[in-house]
Amino acid sequence: MIRLQYSLELAYTVLTPSADFFFNFHPAFTPQQSVVQEHLSVNQAGATWQLQQDADGQRSLRLQAQSGPLQLNYQATVEMRHYSDDPESIAEVPLYQLPLEALRYIYPSRYCQSDRLAAYAYDLFGQQAPGYARAQAVCNWVQQHVKFRSNSSSGTTSAVDTLVECVGVCRDFAHLMIAMCRAINLPARFVTGTDYGADPALGPPDFHAYVEVYLGGRWYMFDPSGTAIPMGMMRLATGRDAADAAFATIFGGVTSDAPRIGVVAEHDGGQWQLPVHTRQGLSTALV
Amino acid sequence: MIRLQYSLELAYTVLTPSADFFFNFHPAFTPQQSVVQEHLSVNQAGATWQLQQDADGQRSLRLQAQSGPLQLNYQATVEMRHYSDDPESIAEVPLYQLPLEALRYIYPSRYCQSDRLAAYAYDLFGQQAPGYARAQAVCNWVQQHVKFRSNSSSGTTSAVDTLVECVGVCRDFAHLMIAMCRAINLPARFVTGTDYGADPALGPPDFHAYVEVYLGGRWYMFDPSGTAIPMGMMRLATGRDAADAAFATIFGGVTSDAPRIGVVAEHDGGQWQLPVHTRQGLSTALV
Amino acid sequence: MIRLQYSLELAYTVLTPSADFFFNFHPAFTPQQSVVQEHLSVNQAGATWQLQQDADGQRSLRLQAQSGPLQLNYQATVEMRHYSDDPESIAEVPLYQLPLEALRYIYPSRYCQSDRLAAYAYDLFGQQAPGYARAQAVCNWVQQHVKFRSNSSSGTTSAVDTLVECVGVCRDFAHLMIAMCRAINLPARFVTGTDYGADPALGPPDFHAYVEVYLGGRWYMFDPSGTAIPMGMMRLATGRDAADAAFATIFGGVTSDAPRIGVVAEHDGGQWQLPVHTRQGLSTALV
Amino acid sequence: MIRLQYSLELAYTVLTPSADFFFNFHPAFTPQQSVVQEHLSVNQAGATWQLQQDADGQRSLRLQAQSGPLQLNYQATVEMRHYSDDPESIAEVPLYQLPLEALRYIYPSRYCQSDRLAAYAYDLFGQQAPGYARAQAVCNWVQQHVKFRSNSSSGTTSAVDTLVECVGVCRDFAHLMIAMCRAINLPARFVTGTDYGADPALGPPDFHAYVEVYLGGRWYMFDPSGTAIPMGMMRLATGRDAADAAFATIFGGVTSDAPRIGVVAEHDGGQWQLPVHTRQGLSTALV
Repeated sequence: MIRLQYSLELAYTVLTPSADFFFNFHPAFTPQQSVVQEHLSVNQAGATWQLQQDADGQRSLRLQAQSGPLQLNYQATVEMRHYSDDPESIAEVPLYQLPLEALRYIYPSRYCQSDRLAAYAYDLFGQQAPGYARAQAVCNWVQQHVKFRSNSSSGTTSAVDTLVECVGVCRDFAHLMIAMCRAINLPARFVTGTDYGADPALGPPDFHAYVEVYLGGRWYMFDPSGTAIPMGMMRLATGRDAADAAFATIFGGVTSDAPRIGVVAEHDGGQWQLPVHTRQGLSTALV
Repeated sequence: MIRLQYSLELAYTVLTPSADFFFNFHPAFTPQQSVVQEHLSVNQAGATWQLQQDADGQRSLRLQAQSGPLQLNYQATVEMRHYSDDPESIAEVPLYQLPLEALRYIYPSRYCQSDRLAAYAYDLFGQQAPGYARAQAVCNWVQQHVKFRSNSSSGTTSAVDTLVECVGVCRDFAHLMIAMCRAINLPARFVTGTDYGADPALGPPDFHAYVEVYLGGRWYMFDPSGTAIPMGMMRLATGRDAADAAFATIFGGVTSDAPRIGVVAEHDGGQWQLPVHTRQGLSTALV
Repeated sequence: MIRLQYSLELAYTVLTPSADFFFNFHPAFTPQQSVVQEHLSVNQAGATWQLQQDADGQRSLRLQAQSGPLQLNYQATVEMRHYSDDPESIAEVPLYQLPLEALRYIYPSRYCQSDRLAAYAYDLFGQQAPGYARAQAVCNWVQQHVKFRSNSSSGTTSAVDTLVECVGVCRDFAHLMIAMCRAINLPARFVTGTDYGADPALGPPDFHAYVEVYLGGRWYMFDPSGTAIPMGMMRLATGRDAADAAFATIFGGVTSDAPRIGVVAEHDGGQWQLPVHTRQGLSTALV
Repeated sequence: MIRLQYSLELAYTVLTPSADFFFNFHPAFTPQQSVVQEHLSVNQAGATWQLQQDADGQRSLRLQAQSGPLQLNYQATVEMRHYSDDPESIAEVPLYQLPLEALRYIYPSRYCQSDRLAAYAYDLFGQQAPGYARAQAVCNWVQQHVKFRSNSSSGTTSAVDTLVECVGVCRDFAHLMIAMCRAINLPARFVTGTDYGADPALGPPDFHAYVEVYLGGRWYMFDPSGTAIPMGMMRLATGRDAADAAFATIFGGVTSDAPRIGVVAEHDGGQWQLPVHTRQGLSTALV
């Protein structure tokens, strides 16, 4: 089992009389991930906020702030007990048997135009035996096809752009993998977390984007950018793509500093272990 | 109140050993729309199917057919009692107060890249007073900007294409209106129905695509292509855009004939009236 | 040597008071291609036209017609004596030594966005030894990557679309090959001709689009769609891409029938031979 | 008449064994623009270069440098005597009479997809009387539609993007105006110069991009970004769009500093006058 100490500092300046913030930085509640304790403080007396939880266990904070500086400090202790399974035993679910909840993740979305990639994906993966290994093959192909480069994409960059231009950040790797999976009728979705285990050369700890594919009746994690250790990627928000699951969506005139994130894994030689790479299929999703 | 006799004939030939069909042609169940009686017949002995209903009252049919001809005949009697309100009394809901369900319809989607249209939409509608009239202004602008031409778009045509090329069919008008609304932070979504009242010169009765905007705590109908009479547009499926709400999604090798659709409104001088154009705000959505 | 009998019938109806036509259907004059005799007849008494020749030997016909039917009949006898060379002996020209005329064909154009494909092309061909064989490798790759399907593209389809969607007609194969070549700094351009040798299953004889790459101080022909026999592809127009070299550009309200094209190769067992596939590098361009 | 003192300092570091540079920073030679004296110095002993002039009077420098620092210093005295005419007297040239040289500038190019903008442009300008005033109306519309913002676009941003996103720098304004002009069959091209008269708040003196439209048998200047004084925009390179006329195209591994540009206008109360805004049609192009 994994136990993470997660801290977050956000600093903004609101330039308009007020501004609305929609945040997705709280760890989700799922059977595999629990929050032992957490604390949020907001420095602005005039700010109001509410925390909401959806049917998937995702928690969203909406906050209305007034003109002036705004700081949020959040810290939590998060425990994860991953569902884990042998890749060889994880089959694809036939289309006809997909639950409605999974079915909606085979359709194209803003950044994952799977409708346009049908032939491309079929050429690469159409002949491969269905199963976890096929999703893994998509993941590996994306990792090879795309080169990680900081600041190489923008808010309008989509899977088609990344396929063509072969460069991106973790969100772009995720979008391309999702689009390719959907193009071969594998339900796939976008998840945000934190980049535990990322090479410090890429910068300070940061939010992360990865992929879940619906296989064997469950959502399994894949990390197509290969920059983090999946076992340590605390789950935050889920969506069709980055349009749904941004860590922050802001309405109003606001300047911001880079978020400061800390994630430390406890290890005591017994119950709590450090996240490590594994070839097992892992899941933290509410089924 | 409106009472429609709806009939549908679908004819396919399955070329592969089997094929999966996901249909959205059943009228939705909402407080404003009820199905008095309905009957579905499928000609193929080997076909299996199931009908599912989601939390919004939308009904989806999934069907697995075997190689060979496949015909579906569906007929239903549908009654609609629209929620109706005076446009002047319908306000916009402040962002901060949007329910989660509405909030997810302000984000961009496959065919509605509202993120790219922010400045364009703001220039046109940013200064206008919030409310139903502003959504109507978007609708009117789309109707003026785009010219209806049959077969002028394809399955990959998006709101950005329609904005630039100024031509499309009902689905393209809907996508552009949705994108423009979201760009000014109005939740908007894609609805399919039937094109009651459409000019026969445009062809035989057909499925239709229109828009709902979340205003005053409710989803109001808009018909940006202006080709149908909204009061007669029986509600089928709802989604972020056409990616979610296609009348049929087919997996397998299949040829198809054009669907044959019939919609007849009853009128008896009393309870049942013919659909007419109205300037009232109308809604058939489950709130 | 090749001797072709080329005939063309074009039929239009001009709906506006007048219409302007810019045609590129005359065989070009180059040292490798000569027109022994030709005859053009235009059925409309009120039509005026002029034929112009540019510095590359390309001939353009501009014609102004009046309202009503318009028919053009053109026939010519064309002789081709291809420049031919051993692929192993054809080197790439270092960038620094490219003549200005060739240099302008390394820049991106409307349908060949080579600027976006730099990394993709470099991954595939960047490590390969420079020379004719590298251009041939690009040609072969395009032929494998893209599937020929009639009517699968439109007037706005570009190399990026074809790369992503893996389907197209001869013009799309040409655009993708051109974009890939430019992306590795090989000057490449678009040429139109006729599809001598095409499989009759693809339809009646038609115009064709192919590619020229500047190698060893000369423009060599490549046929990425692989649908014709290069030795029989009579040269018509040259440009950066289809935007420059359309067989007809029409201004005014006009309906048209499909052009009727005939190309017959003479063979007498002596001087005149039938076009055949060859692995030699071929050129018909004015150097 | 205008007399400018033009100076330019360029500093690079070549990281690869060698690198090729194609520069377009020399003032063009035209009947309206002459270079009284000029001097180029290159600091690198191992560098070789040559200057070429094309039929339009544009001068291109190609330079091959070795690994290590590379500095170019260029200075010139340039005299301009603009062709000037009364806008009311400048007519459009009928398509049928366009010279081949102008005709090629009505086709779409990499960054100016006029083929997609036909309906949009026709709606705005199709009914307007032909002539200089119509080109000016396009220029004014672009200036209103697009907002200038430094660093808001990238090397792949095209006219369609700028139309949709309503933001850009001078090159984007130029691309949109060119695309709109071509869409109504006005030949239009891209010209680079220097931004004499630009607001110092936008930064130090810089290269500039503007537009020429073919009217009355001559190429007239338009400055759609409105950031400079056209009379002082020394002419450098001409092309279909920025793909053709970049100030520098570099092949090899190179880092660069921002170019340092100086342009000073002489004024002596007599022969030499300061550039001023005028409503006259101006031209510096070789006809």
